[in-house]
Amino acid sequence: MEERDDRKYESSYNDITVHELMLRDDSRTLAYKKFIEENPHFFKRKVVMDVGAGTGILSLFAASAGAKKVYAVEASNISKLCKKIIEKNKVDGIVQVIHGRVEEVSIPEKVDVIISEWMGFYLLHESMLQSVIVARDRFLKQDGQIFPSIANLYACPTSLKSHHDEVNKFWKNFYGYNFKSTTTSNKEPKILTINPKDLISDPHLITAIDLMYADVNDFNIISTSLKFAFTKHDIMRGIALWFDVIFGNEDDDNEPITKKISQASNTLLESSGTSLQVFSPGSNIMKPVTLSTSPLHPATHWKQTVIPFFESYFVRPGSWFKCEMILTQDELHKRRYNITVEVEDSGGDKEEDEISDVSDDIRAELEELVKNKMEEN
Amino acid sequence: MEERDDRKYESSYNDITVHELMLRDDSRTLAYKKFIEENPHFFKRKVVMDVGAGTGILSLFAASAGAKKVYAVEASNISKLCKKIIEKNKVDGIVQVIHGRVEEVSIPEKVDVIISEWMGFYLLHESMLQSVIVARDRFLKQDGQIFPSIANLYACPTSLKSHHDEVNKFWKNFYGYNFKSTTTSNKEPKILTINPKDLISDPHLITAIDLMYADVNDFNIISTSLKFAFTKHDIMRGIALWFDVIFGNEDDDNEPITKKISQASNTLLESSGTSLQVFSPGSNIMKPVTLSTSPLHPATHWKQTVIPFFESYFVRPGSWFKCEMILTQDELHKRRYNITVEVEDSGGDKEEDEISDVSDDIRAELEELVKNKMEEN
Repeated sequence: MEERDDRKYESSYNDITVHELMLRDDSRTLAYKKFIEENPHFFKRKVVMDVGAGTGILSLFAASAGAKKVYAVEASNISKLCKKIIEKNKVDGIVQVIHGRVEEVSIPEKVDVIISEWMGFYLLHESMLQSVIVARDRFLKQDGQIFPSIANLYACPTSLKSHHDEVNKFWKNFYGYNFKSTTTSNKEPKILTINPKDLISDPHLITAIDLMYADVNDFNIISTSLKFAFTKHDIMRGIALWFDVIFGNEDDDNEPITKKISQASNTLLESSGTSLQVFSPGSNIMKPVTLSTSPLHPATHWKQTVIPFFESYFVRPGSWFKCEMILTQDELHKRRYNITVEVEDSGGDKEEDEISDVSDDIRAELEELVKNKMEEN
Repeated sequence: MEERDDRKYESSYNDITVHELMLRDDSRTLAYKKFIEENPHFFKRKVVMDVGAGTGILSLFAASAGAKKVYAVEASNISKLCKKIIEKNKVDGIVQVIHGRVEEVSIPEKVDVIISEWMGFYLLHESMLQSVIVARDRFLKQDGQIFPSIANLYACPTSLKSHHDEVNKFWKNFYGYNFKSTTTSNKEPKILTINPKDLISDPHLITAIDLMYADVNDFNIISTSLKFAFTKHDIMRGIALWFDVIFGNEDDDNEPITKKISQASNTLLESSGTSLQVFSPGSNIMKPVTLSTSPLHPATHWKQTVIPFFESYFVRPGSWFKCEMILTQDELHKRRYNITVEVEDSGGDKEEDEISDVSDDIRAELEELVKNKMEEN
C-alpha cells in the first residue's frame, strides 16, 4: 500500500509543470542560491548529495560553488530531464544524476553536505522530510551539514476576512442571483494567501525541527497545545499554518538547538527581512538565510494552509483561545496528514460571550458590530 | 468500462472549483444571459430542460425569462448544491432539479426548449454533446428549439511565437543556467491563449454541427482535409483549434443549415463582435448571439487548444500546407479525443524549401532570417 502510494507520488512529479511552478517560485530558488553563493566554503571541494533533485537546480548551484562531486538523487522520471540539463550546462563531470529512491540507491562514499528542497504545503505534506532523514543516516559524514538546517511550523488564528469578503461579494449577487451556497459547501483545508491584516493573534510555533537530530518517527503524529491571545475585535474563521526553514547553524556543541530556536523563531515573525540574526551576527564564517512562507513575507507557491472552522467565533482583545493542534500522518496515504484543531478552553475576562459560536444567520450582524467597534476606536 | 469512465467524469464535476472557474468566465455566462434576455419569447410560459445544469445558472436565466417549468438535470453531486441555490433564489416552484443522467431520467412531459452548456476544450473534449443529442431525441417537442443551435470547430496554423519566446527567454538563462530542455519535453496538446499575431494563415472550419440534426454517432471520428495558405514569413510550430457556438436559428425550412453556416462562419472570423448577421438581420423576432473562443475574441476558460508539431516548418506568403485533421474518440476514455494532423502535401511556388523540416539547431538561425525578411518589408 505504501509502496503504491510512493509510486503515485513520484509519478505526479513527472509532470514538468509541477517543476515549472517550483522553479518559478523566486523566493524558494533564491534562498537556496543566496545561501550557497554566500557560504561557498561549505561546498568548495566537498561531496554533496541533492535529495529529490528534480530538474537539478540545487545541484547546479552546488557545482558552481565548487563542489568536488554532487550526487543528484531523483526517484521520478524527471531524472532523465535532470541529466539532460546537467549535460547541457557542462557539469556532468561533477554532478552525477542517480535515478532511484534515496532509501535504496547506493554511492561509493559518504558526503559532506546534504541539500534538499523537501518542504510541502504546511511543511509536512508529501512527507519528503523522512527521505532526507534517511539520507542523513545512510550517507552523511559525522561532521557533515544539512541545508536547510532548521524547519519551523507555525499556527495563527485568522479572520479570513479579505478572502471571505471577496468570495461573498462575488457570489452574493451573481448575475442578479444569490449563489452564496457555493461558498460554504467546503470545509477542507485550503491553500491560499492570507492578508496579514487577517491575522488576529500572534502566531505560535507548532514544532521546530532540527534536521541534524530529528528521527523519522518524530512526524507520525505532531500534537501541540496552543494558547492564542486575540489582538483585535474580529471573527475567527480558522487557523492558518505556515513554515520557515533556516539555512545555517553555527552551534559548536553537539546538541539539538530546537529549544533555542523555538524562542528565537517567534521573534523572527515580527521582522520582514529574509536574513536571520540568531546565529552569531558578528561571525563572517556563516551567513544564514531564512526562507519564510509567512503571510508577512512575499508569496511563495506554498502560500499558507488554512484549517477553516465549521463555526465562526466572535473575538475581542484580551480574550483567548486554547486548542490542541494535531497533525496525524494518514494511515493509507502516508504523504498526507489529517489536521485537527480541538478547542480546549477559552477565557480572558471570564465573560461568556467572548468566544461563542456564531450561526450563519447572525454572522453578518456581528460583522457589522465589529466594524462599528473598530471605527469607534 | 465506459460506465466507470462516466462516473469519474461526474465526480470531477463535484469539485466546486471547476464550477467556479466556469461561472467566473464572463464571456460564457453572459452569452447565455444575453440570448435568453433578448429572446424571452422562446422561454415565456415554455417548458425548458437544462442538460448538465451544474450550479443551475442557466435554469435561473430561463426561470427569470418566464419559463413555466425548468427541468435542471445534473448527474454529479453538484445537483445538491444546485437545489440549494434554486431554493435560495425562490424559484423552486419553477425549477425542478433532477439528479441523474439525461440518458436515464424521466419527466412527465416533452419540452419546448433545451438549453445546455456542453462545450469542452476544442469543443468536443468531455463529449457532453452526445448527452444533449440524447436529450433532444428523448424529450424535445417536434417544433422545439435547442440553444446553442450551431457549433463550429476551427483550425489555424500558428507560429506560437509569443508563447515560445516567453518560455525560451525564461528558461534559456535560468539563474545563470540553461534549462531549455524543460521546454521541449512535451508535445501533448496544450490549452493556452494564442496571440492573434501568431496566426499565420486564415482559419478553416473543421466541422459545423447543427444541434437539431446531428446524430450521436457523428462524433466518433471527425476527419477533414484542410489546405492552409500562409499569409506571412514565419515558423509554423503547430495548429490551434477553437470553436464558437451560435444561439438562434431562424430557418423555417426543416433542413440542416450546416452548409449555409459553414460558408458564413469563415467570414465571421474576421469580425470582432459577438453578434452574427447570418440570420435575417431585419427581423426583430430572433436576436442571435455568438459565443466565440477565437484568439480574436476576449479570452474564455476554454482558451485555445494547440496541437504542437514535433518539427518546425519555415513558411512564407504564397506557400501552403495540406493536411488531414482527424479527431478520434478514445476507445477507453470516451470523453477524450485523440487528435492527429497528417501532412498530405505542401506547395505554392513549387520551390523545395518553402515548407521544410527544421531541426532544433538551425531553428534560431531561421528565425533570425525571418525577422530580417520581415524588417526588409
